[in-house]
Amino acid sequence: MQDTHKQEGLRGRLQTLVESSRFQQVITALIVINAVTLGLETSERAMAAAGGLLQTLDKLILSVFVVELAMKILVYGRRFHRDPWNLFDLLVVSVALVPATGNLSVLRALRVLRVLRLISAVPSMRRVVGALLAALPGMGSIVALLGLLYYVFAVMATKLFAASFPDWFGTIGASAYTLFQIMTLESWSMGIVRPVMETYPLAWLFFVPFILMTSFTVLNLFIGIIVDAMQAGQQAEMEAEREQVHADAETILRELRSLRREVAELKGERGE
Amino acid sequence: MQDTHKQEGLRGRLQTLVESSRFQQVITALIVINAVTLGLETSERAMAAAGGLLQTLDKLILSVFVVELAMKILVYGRRFHRDPWNLFDLLVVSVALVPATGNLSVLRALRVLRVLRLISAVPSMRRVVGALLAALPGMGSIVALLGLLYYVFAVMATKLFAASFPDWFGTIGASAYTLFQIMTLESWSMGIVRPVMETYPLAWLFFVPFILMTSFTVLNLFIGIIVDAMQAGQQAEMEAEREQVHADAETILRELRSLRREVAELKGERGE
Amino acid sequence: MQDTHKQEGLRGRLQTLVESSRFQQVITALIVINAVTLGLETSERAMAAAGGLLQTLDKLILSVFVVELAMKILVYGRRFHRDPWNLFDLLVVSVALVPATGNLSVLRALRVLRVLRLISAVPSMRRVVGALLAALPGMGSIVALLGLLYYVFAVMATKLFAASFPDWFGTIGASAYTLFQIMTLESWSMGIVRPVMETYPLAWLFFVPFILMTSFTVLNLFIGIIVDAMQAGQQAEMEAEREQVHADAETILRELRSLRREVAELKGERGE
Amino acid sequence: MQDTHKQEGLRGRLQTLVESSRFQQVITALIVINAVTLGLETSERAMAAAGGLLQTLDKLILSVFVVELAMKILVYGRRFHRDPWNLFDLLVVSVALVPATGNLSVLRALRVLRVLRLISAVPSMRRVVGALLAALPGMGSIVALLGLLYYVFAVMATKLFAASFPDWFGTIGASAYTLFQIMTLESWSMGIVRPVMETYPLAWLFFVPFILMTSFTVLNLFIGIIVDAMQAGQQAEMEAEREQVHADAETILRELRSLRREVAELKGERGE
Repeated sequence: MQDTHKQEGLRGRLQTLVESSRFQQVITALIVINAVTLGLETSERAMAAAGGLLQTLDKLILSVFVVELAMKILVYGRRFHRDPWNLFDLLVVSVALVPATGNLSVLRALRVLRVLRLISAVPSMRRVVGALLAALPGMGSIVALLGLLYYVFAVMATKLFAASFPDWFGTIGASAYTLFQIMTLESWSMGIVRPVMETYPLAWLFFVPFILMTSFTVLNLFIGIIVDAMQAGQQAEMEAEREQVHADAETILRELRSLRREVAELKGERGE
Repeated sequence: MQDTHKQEGLRGRLQTLVESSRFQQVITALIVINAVTLGLETSERAMAAAGGLLQTLDKLILSVFVVELAMKILVYGRRFHRDPWNLFDLLVVSVALVPATGNLSVLRALRVLRVLRLISAVPSMRRVVGALLAALPGMGSIVALLGLLYYVFAVMATKLFAASFPDWFGTIGASAYTLFQIMTLESWSMGIVRPVMETYPLAWLFFVPFILMTSFTVLNLFIGIIVDAMQAGQQAEMEAEREQVHADAETILRELRSLRREVAELKGERGE
Repeated sequence: MQDTHKQEGLRGRLQTLVESSRFQQVITALIVINAVTLGLETSERAMAAAGGLLQTLDKLILSVFVVELAMKILVYGRRFHRDPWNLFDLLVVSVALVPATGNLSVLRALRVLRVLRLISAVPSMRRVVGALLAALPGMGSIVALLGLLYYVFAVMATKLFAASFPDWFGTIGASAYTLFQIMTLESWSMGIVRPVMETYPLAWLFFVPFILMTSFTVLNLFIGIIVDAMQAGQQAEMEAEREQVHADAETILRELRSLRREVAELKGERGE
Repeated sequence: MQDTHKQEGLRGRLQTLVESSRFQQVITALIVINAVTLGLETSERAMAAAGGLLQTLDKLILSVFVVELAMKILVYGRRFHRDPWNLFDLLVVSVALVPATGNLSVLRALRVLRVLRLISAVPSMRRVVGALLAALPGMGSIVALLGLLYYVFAVMATKLFAASFPDWFGTIGASAYTLFQIMTLESWSMGIVRPVMETYPLAWLFFVPFILMTSFTVLNLFIGIIVDAMQAGQQAEMEAEREQVHADAETILRELRSLRREVAELKGERGE
């Protein structure tokens, strides 16, 4: 990912260090250790037995991560921002530096996201996530369509059912959440539609088409991904075949042209 | 979609206007603004703060849409009806013009369907929906089979369980809805079949085969769509390969025929 | 499906009648009408208004079906049994002739199965069902594996949980049903496993692997069907390509052999 | 699977016996009979009627299995351990030999696993299971990613919700189980997320992304398996086509080279 041309002086030596496989292994090991300590911190028994140790360890590892990122920023400068994984590392480490007090106490839970650095640290993980993300742009227009359908159905559901079922359809947001639940088919009938139908007997005319439409759209989203994945592999295969067939044809043509030259020579000799 | 040959006079100038990309952009922007206003209308706070403005805006945009469609009808005449997207636009705009009072108050909710005009206004959306709809005809006979299965099972369920479970199986319609719920696997056992089995212990002989049959049929419906989508792409690929291979063969044949002509000449010369 | 060689005399004329498209159309129409009457019979209002008419109509149509099948048996003799669709027709019509009283009152509901004759009467329906059934044999060994897994898990569940949860795991049959429900993921956790875990905290060690194993097996069942369906289409496509490529090669070879003959003649002439 | 080279003396005769199809059939039959007796042991009525017989039969069959495995170990020696199916047989038979008392009473239920020997005894079952297991290694890195996601989300859920919902999110284990339930979409909203949202209104910001991420990852896991299965079949197909096309090209080339030789001879003759 990063440019590999070396620099001189301190930055050069820092770069050698940062890019050494030993350094990467140490960081990976620290991420795994940190994953364990962060997990143990949720256990009351572990906190009672070794709470101080766990928190010290956590702070130590966090410091190493901060130093590591600072070194990388120093070494790569502006190029640091070009690798999205660096930005990802920066983000999940930064979360731990924000003081998590008052309204921001939820940030304490987000510190665990640091463990996701394992993805950016292990190349095979990076590749898998890269492949997953690569499927996203192809889904763009169908996801936009799904979003539009959701919005329209959410507004309609709010207008139709907000008065009688404020918990489920009180606002567009509540309706969108309920419709998402219905799309996942979770308790859609016994939990939502049957109670709604007791007030509005024709409510199924709203929900059943919604289920059919979103299922069909999501299905086509999946089919698109499958077909794309398949054709990518296939095209390479076909390309290989085409090339071999073409090479065969080229050999025949070469042979044929030599033959023609010889026949021409034969004619030429006769003409002499 | 629409014929592009120009007309003269007022209709010609109207056509130039209607087909200009500026005009399309304005309409698209109005659809988006209308989506927002229609959404805000569901919020009590927004209505209290700016209810009058929202409704005025809504009426204004609706008037623009009516004028737009009138212009298109004027410009294209009979050709207007040939583009199904025009009919779609006409329908979703007309809904807003029907007085939504009394029994028709549900039409007020349907006005939001106007936002779906975004699909017909944005070409990439049109293509996606077109692709989705294109998959439907191939599903015809398997959907018919599913419909037949549903009908038979719904009648049977009504005959078997209507007496004891009128809420779920009281009429064919109620049975069909319950069977749809069971097909989506929502609460099928804990919610429906276990209670039914308390009265009719062998009811699983009815419901388990129904689940297996409909799942298998729906699965094959999906497989059909996947295979069709795949083969469409593949056929094009294969076609390309075949053409290249054939072109290679043609080149060899041409070369071969020139050679034969030369050999024939050689023979001819000898014959002289 | 049926042999088409004609017979003489009465049987010959009967065959002409039975195989006429007019006759088929009448039968198909009667099946549809019967579907409607059988549906209406479930409606109390319809029965109150025209119950006698509906039942008379039903008996009339049933008689026509019996006569039709009798004619077919007479015409085709032993060949009648070779077409599985004939046996299907015979079965669903016979159900209506069994007196449905006492313990057999459930047979009254099964009479609706007669409507499924629409499948055997409409060729495109036959093809779809034929295609669905054709996928079954390839599923054989994986379904056998699934059956074995089910049996082992059902016996284990009965041994482990029968004492505390007799309703869900009292017998092998009850366990198999509950495991089927769990496989469909319906209320598996909130409805079954969480309550079980209150008594046996490690019950998840039994159920989560069961869900993973059956999901993975069923998934592979589906993948097998998809891959088979795909390769069937693909093979035909490939076959066509291969043939064309081979035809090209044959043309080249023919041309080449003529050329060689001419060169041989040239040599022969020289030898003269 | 096993080496087939014969040994002499007693071991040789034992090997002949163990590898005879008669012996295999007897073992397979005993597995099936044992499956039935183990099933019947769960029925109180069967135990009351013939409990002693069933248990004697079970012990007898178990003895035969022990002898069979002892013979195989004797015959194959160290090679016995190379076939994973032998180890599987050894494991499921050994379970029955451990005294199942006190804390180990759960082992009594595990004895039924012996019936799974049917998989190792029937070749077609072995192949199916082999094919299923063969798909696992390709899933490695995506399963590792899923595991990492689970761990991070489980720790976060514990930190966020343990205080208010100790039953669902009290420990990392409880959170992981609840998240697995949510991933299977079972009662995720009505059962878990809606109650959580009553305390933490923004909880959907945690759960909806979790559902979307895991669904998308699992979907890609499936797509990977489908594409792999497809391409395996396809590659063979393509290989066959490529070979045939290449054979055609070879024939043409051979023909062409003979022709060239003849033309060369023609020139040679002229040169004489």
